[in-house]
Amino acid sequence: MSLPNHGANPNHLAKALGMALPEHIDDFSVNTNPFGPPSSLSKMNLIDLLSDVSAYPDPHVSELTARLAKINNVPTSHLLVGNGAAELIFLIGSVFRQKKVRIIEPAFSEYRDACLAHDCQVESLVLEAPWKLEKKHINEAIKDIDVLFLCSPNNPTGVRFEDETMVALVEAAEQAGVYVVIDEAFYDFCEQNKGLQELIHSYSKLILLRSMTKMYAIAGIRLGYMLADEKLIQQIKKRQPPWSVNGLAQKMGLQLLEEDAFVRQSVLSLSTERERMRGELVKLDFDISPSTVNFYLVSEQKKEDLKPLMLFLAEQGIVARHTYNFNGLNGKYLRLAVKDMQANDRLLHVMAKWRRQCSFS
Amino acid sequence: MSLPNHGANPNHLAKALGMALPEHIDDFSVNTNPFGPPSSLSKMNLIDLLSDVSAYPDPHVSELTARLAKINNVPTSHLLVGNGAAELIFLIGSVFRQKKVRIIEPAFSEYRDACLAHDCQVESLVLEAPWKLEKKHINEAIKDIDVLFLCSPNNPTGVRFEDETMVALVEAAEQAGVYVVIDEAFYDFCEQNKGLQELIHSYSKLILLRSMTKMYAIAGIRLGYMLADEKLIQQIKKRQPPWSVNGLAQKMGLQLLEEDAFVRQSVLSLSTERERMRGELVKLDFDISPSTVNFYLVSEQKKEDLKPLMLFLAEQGIVARHTYNFNGLNGKYLRLAVKDMQANDRLLHVMAKWRRQCSFS
Repeated sequence: MSLPNHGANPNHLAKALGMALPEHIDDFSVNTNPFGPPSSLSKMNLIDLLSDVSAYPDPHVSELTARLAKINNVPTSHLLVGNGAAELIFLIGSVFRQKKVRIIEPAFSEYRDACLAHDCQVESLVLEAPWKLEKKHINEAIKDIDVLFLCSPNNPTGVRFEDETMVALVEAAEQAGVYVVIDEAFYDFCEQNKGLQELIHSYSKLILLRSMTKMYAIAGIRLGYMLADEKLIQQIKKRQPPWSVNGLAQKMGLQLLEEDAFVRQSVLSLSTERERMRGELVKLDFDISPSTVNFYLVSEQKKEDLKPLMLFLAEQGIVARHTYNFNGLNGKYLRLAVKDMQANDRLLHVMAKWRRQCSFS
Repeated sequence: MSLPNHGANPNHLAKALGMALPEHIDDFSVNTNPFGPPSSLSKMNLIDLLSDVSAYPDPHVSELTARLAKINNVPTSHLLVGNGAAELIFLIGSVFRQKKVRIIEPAFSEYRDACLAHDCQVESLVLEAPWKLEKKHINEAIKDIDVLFLCSPNNPTGVRFEDETMVALVEAAEQAGVYVVIDEAFYDFCEQNKGLQELIHSYSKLILLRSMTKMYAIAGIRLGYMLADEKLIQQIKKRQPPWSVNGLAQKMGLQLLEEDAFVRQSVLSLSTERERMRGELVKLDFDISPSTVNFYLVSEQKKEDLKPLMLFLAEQGIVARHTYNFNGLNGKYLRLAVKDMQANDRLLHVMAKWRRQCSFS
């Protein structure tokens, strides 16, 4: 059995590693908000939601589309809600079937899978640590292709590319007739909480992807959306099955968009914890990626493969995300989530234990 | 505003007709089980389901796939669960991109939409009332195409094609190298409750579609599956986004498959009510399609367009499904659901009123 392609799948990981996990585990391989879902959601009553379970969902997702369009200050015609961002990525792959695609990597593995499923030619531009996209990369990034995919804030590094660079990239791509898909699934975990939605008004070849499953911790019911030019939205919508966005996602999504205080508090707590973890892990001689979000990469000096650490963590009930299927990382790093203080302390305790063992060995 | 493409959308219909619906309406345009969802589902507690809302769904849908495969007596490799049957129809369209397709019509409109979205050439074989597929149609049905779509028991007529004809069709198609997609979304509403799943073992070009949203009345959370040859399942799975089947659908689906008594009781009540309605409506001089399921077509002798009846019904709080977008029906019929006795009586009352008015005019 091979290692899972995604985090948040500890039992699959344990099977693949041929080991049993302890009874209590902390899943640091999942990158949803550990403080979610907001309590307003858990207080919803299934009896009140029964009509949303039973009746056909609004096939036009009208209310949620209108609310998201307002929040992002774009017309509703420029927004499409999906069954998670993953559905939208696959629909984009379908629309750009057989085209030439480049992915700025390391990045979420689904861009490649979606494009390969639709017979695209896929190339990579692999950034080196500390994974900063710079203006000097732009020409190479958009050269001789039809579509560029990138992820900022980046999954798995947590690095947020600078606005100035992004604007220059989008401008150059528009001039060159290249579509740019920017996955902003984690933009709302950054302290500045600012996406590139304003650019939608000026660029017809820009596609922004957003996820609601991460911040609100509703990965089970699936909810994502995209922002793009009206024509492109129409092309993609044509390929989206009717009722793709389920009724509970539509109902809960509307409710969750009222949760401003929850978002602010989550971002504050996670940023504080991330910086605390960085300080403590650096003291233990680990290297930490310059993350701006709710996860980070950890590596060890002079170690090319962190599998021994991953196994040690798993034995101690800490599940980390391997990086074997991230181009440019190849197992040299582990991705770890930022959790609440108690869980983070448990991680620190085990990391300290590992460091002591290593020093003795 | 044009008429809605599907039933179960009374507000859209009212807007399109430029009228206000009464406060209490009976939606006879929706074709899910009026006795659902089963009470076991409404007794589930959202607190207990919160982990299914919050955590990533199993991307392999392992448990539900195993259970459905067992029920259908096929290996798990021959079954794929989808975000409603609609997702699977669009994935089939994507796999058969640009191919020559024929649809036996009248039929559910999404086969055409899915195939057109993927640039297929789409032809029709339109059956005449009483919409019986016969052996003499087989050669014409599979001639010069790559894929044939049909729906049995049929939506919108309710007619179930005979097993013997279906086997002959599937056999002829296999010989001719033509894929046959048979949508059995309503098979479990028939009294014999028998699908064509046994054929999956013998034919590599047969695809069966199933829905769980109709019988269990869970259209809001989306759940469907397909049965087919392993190779084809692999091709389609490659194009399905990860986590497409949400966590609640997976959890509730497993629960609902235990509801044998609910299914039996529903089928019995709906069959009894359907035949009662047939008798009463025939007495009122309406023609009724030879339906075997939970909806039927109604028409009036010498009337080519039932819009006046649809409007009259709507004014009286009865929402019917128009048939303008069903090839071969073209507005000459309305589709009506079989509901519980009280709702059916309300429909009968209004139909009798219409008949009296017509006789006076």
